[in-house]
Amino acid sequence: MTETTPGWLAEDELELVRARMPILYVEAVPVRVADSGEVTSVGLLLRIGPDGNVSRTLVSGRVLHHERVRDALLRHLEKDLGPVALPRVPASLQPFTVAEYFPTQGVTPYHDPRQHAVSLAYIVPVAGDCQPRQDALDLVWFSPEDAVSAAMQNEMPGGHGALLKQALAHAGLGL
Amino acid sequence: MTETTPGWLAEDELELVRARMPILYVEAVPVRVADSGEVTSVGLLLRIGPDGNVSRTLVSGRVLHHERVRDALLRHLEKDLGPVALPRVPASLQPFTVAEYFPTQGVTPYHDPRQHAVSLAYIVPVAGDCQPRQDALDLVWFSPEDAVSAAMQNEMPGGHGALLKQALAHAGLGL
Amino acid sequence: MTETTPGWLAEDELELVRARMPILYVEAVPVRVADSGEVTSVGLLLRIGPDGNVSRTLVSGRVLHHERVRDALLRHLEKDLGPVALPRVPASLQPFTVAEYFPTQGVTPYHDPRQHAVSLAYIVPVAGDCQPRQDALDLVWFSPEDAVSAAMQNEMPGGHGALLKQALAHAGLGL
Amino acid sequence: MTETTPGWLAEDELELVRARMPILYVEAVPVRVADSGEVTSVGLLLRIGPDGNVSRTLVSGRVLHHERVRDALLRHLEKDLGPVALPRVPASLQPFTVAEYFPTQGVTPYHDPRQHAVSLAYIVPVAGDCQPRQDALDLVWFSPEDAVSAAMQNEMPGGHGALLKQALAHAGLGL
Repeated sequence: MTETTPGWLAEDELELVRARMPILYVEAVPVRVADSGEVTSVGLLLRIGPDGNVSRTLVSGRVLHHERVRDALLRHLEKDLGPVALPRVPASLQPFTVAEYFPTQGVTPYHDPRQHAVSLAYIVPVAGDCQPRQDALDLVWFSPEDAVSAAMQNEMPGGHGALLKQALAHAGLGL
Repeated sequence: MTETTPGWLAEDELELVRARMPILYVEAVPVRVADSGEVTSVGLLLRIGPDGNVSRTLVSGRVLHHERVRDALLRHLEKDLGPVALPRVPASLQPFTVAEYFPTQGVTPYHDPRQHAVSLAYIVPVAGDCQPRQDALDLVWFSPEDAVSAAMQNEMPGGHGALLKQALAHAGLGL
Repeated sequence: MTETTPGWLAEDELELVRARMPILYVEAVPVRVADSGEVTSVGLLLRIGPDGNVSRTLVSGRVLHHERVRDALLRHLEKDLGPVALPRVPASLQPFTVAEYFPTQGVTPYHDPRQHAVSLAYIVPVAGDCQPRQDALDLVWFSPEDAVSAAMQNEMPGGHGALLKQALAHAGLGL
Repeated sequence: MTETTPGWLAEDELELVRARMPILYVEAVPVRVADSGEVTSVGLLLRIGPDGNVSRTLVSGRVLHHERVRDALLRHLEKDLGPVALPRVPASLQPFTVAEYFPTQGVTPYHDPRQHAVSLAYIVPVAGDCQPRQDALDLVWFSPEDAVSAAMQNEMPGGHGALLKQALAHAGLGL
């Protein structure tokens, strides 16, 4: 499920808007890269849901009114990975894909029961130390192979597993 | 100025939402292409504003709640170019750029006094006959060189001239 | 194995060059699309190797001296799919990936025992009738799901199965 | 003119190959970026030709036999910018464009009298100190606006000025 940060809209206003129009999100796949740019590992956030279920998620969140996409990306990276993660926000806003989360299952590979969210997705190399904050318990680094394993995909609901695969395909990994 | 189609939200609701969050748009640059895919001409819609000013615009409009980006793109292409334009909506949703229209000038190259709009921009080859509908007077085809001329750029306010240049740069034209 | 068309270099010259430098290729994933651009099926060429082995391949071939990439793409599409396939060569030369085939296994996901080939890969919607020519026996259309099945991947050696997955990931299919 | 590094092929072999097939290049536009990824300046190499003419160039060079594109990119960045430039080679090999340099003028926006070169072009953020080596006199940083000025474009022959404009368009700068 796509992560959200309430607070900038009153909760009832947010509910109203969510029922009326698509909500713009950004999503980042944190990666470690070699000097040659090759992806060597993928960072997944570990979360425990209210029901006690473990899930793995990517960095994700809304774009606010009057906020640039690249500033939203940086804000959510800092929020989820801490202040010294040193994320390298891309120079170009061209995303590797646009993920469309529908409240109805099956329209696209992505699903969010709360809302229709449209997410601009980026691969973001991270050079520093990551200290997950907010509601994430931990950030764990996986090899690209492990990150797309069936076990891990099962822990990434709502289509985030598919999105991760798309990111690694875009990075040229034939998995 | 980015074109909008009211009607799916009550006007006062739309005003409320516009003041609170970014609105998701799609934008298409209609082009004629050769068999080898090379762009041979660019289609610009001619509009007359309420003040009598002539402007040239691209195909543009909102993404509705529970509507896929590619369906929104097709709907706006049919709305602006007519039913027999035969647009070739791209197989991939990766846009050539993401244009961010701010109500404040100077934050990005794009400006929309009414709202903060975030627009996924695509080049769309069009094979059929175009019959502009709605509030456009005409669709005129220009050579890529003419489309980026200073005269034409002056008729494309709000950063649409810059967006057109970006589209042609993406298509490999060194203009 | 990447398909080649000898003839424009004497065979011994080609061998010399292949031992000295990377050879530039283009590669196309032929697809059928809906009006909204969504990929509905994928076309794979069926070939029988000199050893009697069945393999499935994409459209592929060298870029010649003084030939534009888009002309090479169109030429190989016509060569492999016949004269009335009506391929829609993309308006932009930005490939969805660059596939690097090495004569040594394991350097990248791609392998070609004959040479170091660097291939610009594109998704190409095909609207007409396909009549495979040259050394292909048939062109068979598969659903995206079937095209990435384990059985099919086994029939696509040299990393072409991985390339096909990358193409479908780029097209937004979460497979 | 595209920069080349002789030495890995005997000069006469290189001449032979250049007359027979396209030569694969990589090209990098070195940029400084803000924390949010926004391009703040562009680095151009200053060269003096054998005829005393001043020219500005991008980082550029051939891909060698059995060399990965990303390793070639890193090698040429180190060669042209020195060992402590800290270039951030992109995680994805998808170039922002493919520039085709023809020995004949006018086929594409790019021209190289020596050869048919096909160049994969990338924007590369550079974080460290640049110390141009080889045949470059200096590396000078320009604002994006100055880098695309008419004066600078005149000093970038062979279509490199057009390529630079394409890079900045891809980075979302409406120039």
